[in-house]
Amino acid sequence: MTNIQQPILIQIKPIGVIHTPCREPKDIPIQGIFKSDMEGWIELAEKYQTGLKDLDGFSHAILIYYFHRSAEERLTGKPFLEDKTHGIFAIRSPHRPNHLGLSIVKIKQIETNKLFFTEVDMLDGTPLLDIKPYSQYFDCRENVVSGWMEKHFQDGVIPDQTILR
Amino acid sequence: MTNIQQPILIQIKPIGVIHTPCREPKDIPIQGIFKSDMEGWIELAEKYQTGLKDLDGFSHAILIYYFHRSAEERLTGKPFLEDKTHGIFAIRSPHRPNHLGLSIVKIKQIETNKLFFTEVDMLDGTPLLDIKPYSQYFDCRENVVSGWMEKHFQDGVIPDQTILR
Repeated sequence: MTNIQQPILIQIKPIGVIHTPCREPKDIPIQGIFKSDMEGWIELAEKYQTGLKDLDGFSHAILIYYFHRSAEERLTGKPFLEDKTHGIFAIRSPHRPNHLGLSIVKIKQIETNKLFFTEVDMLDGTPLLDIKPYSQYFDCRENVVSGWMEKHFQDGVIPDQTILR
Repeated sequence: MTNIQQPILIQIKPIGVIHTPCREPKDIPIQGIFKSDMEGWIELAEKYQTGLKDLDGFSHAILIYYFHRSAEERLTGKPFLEDKTHGIFAIRSPHRPNHLGLSIVKIKQIETNKLFFTEVDMLDGTPLLDIKPYSQYFDCRENVVSGWMEKHFQDGVIPDQTILR
């Protein structure tokens, strides 16, 4: 590391809890977009409630959360979609350095400190670290190539078989 | 917080450093996609190099990083695009709880532990926390509504004036 100003350790605190119907990893859709009827909700710590102002004008939000059920830190892994090993930064596995998770969810309703959403793909009780507004102007890209994933989504078909482990 | 299993504090460590031409906040494009010729590179700590395997098959990556130059934690703020106050979770300001930043970048080349990219929108020396593959199948949404941002991007025009602060 050439930059001597790097902090050695960063302390992060949950800003809320994500409640979902997924009690165990096997209950989770591979990505929430593929099971759009499942519902979850965020219980934001009350002291952050003011931060939600105007988020209700957005259809989607980006959630950053902590994979609290993963104790392992691996450098390679097998994704749900296939039985081949890839680098941890080329898959979305929870068993990654820092255990940070990211999902785009569809906002249904915001009431006081609660945000209800669909397109769930995280475990019940997941500690929430941040909420960001999703913007088609910043967050959608054109001419995207998705490496090893491409072959699983040919012709726009959602894969109906995934490998659960 | 109803969930008694919440961890109080989570410890995160940088996995590398992001090098960019942006030495000060005023040098940063509001979002990297709007200044696609600027280049940056990731210097991943060598012990994580194996994790990059197969990421070179992807055109874009999601970077999660630490806004290391922001000491403030605000609940509302004014975005670059306008002079109105919004909730911190409805804007992408660095002055947010946990100071986590997120950018989608375009991968140019990966060499050993270095990842070169365009669509830069972070400061030089930014501590990197995670890299995820960007997938059009998971990360692009249709029928997106972007709240207060909509009026600034009418007719697909990129705003040429932003408020810097």
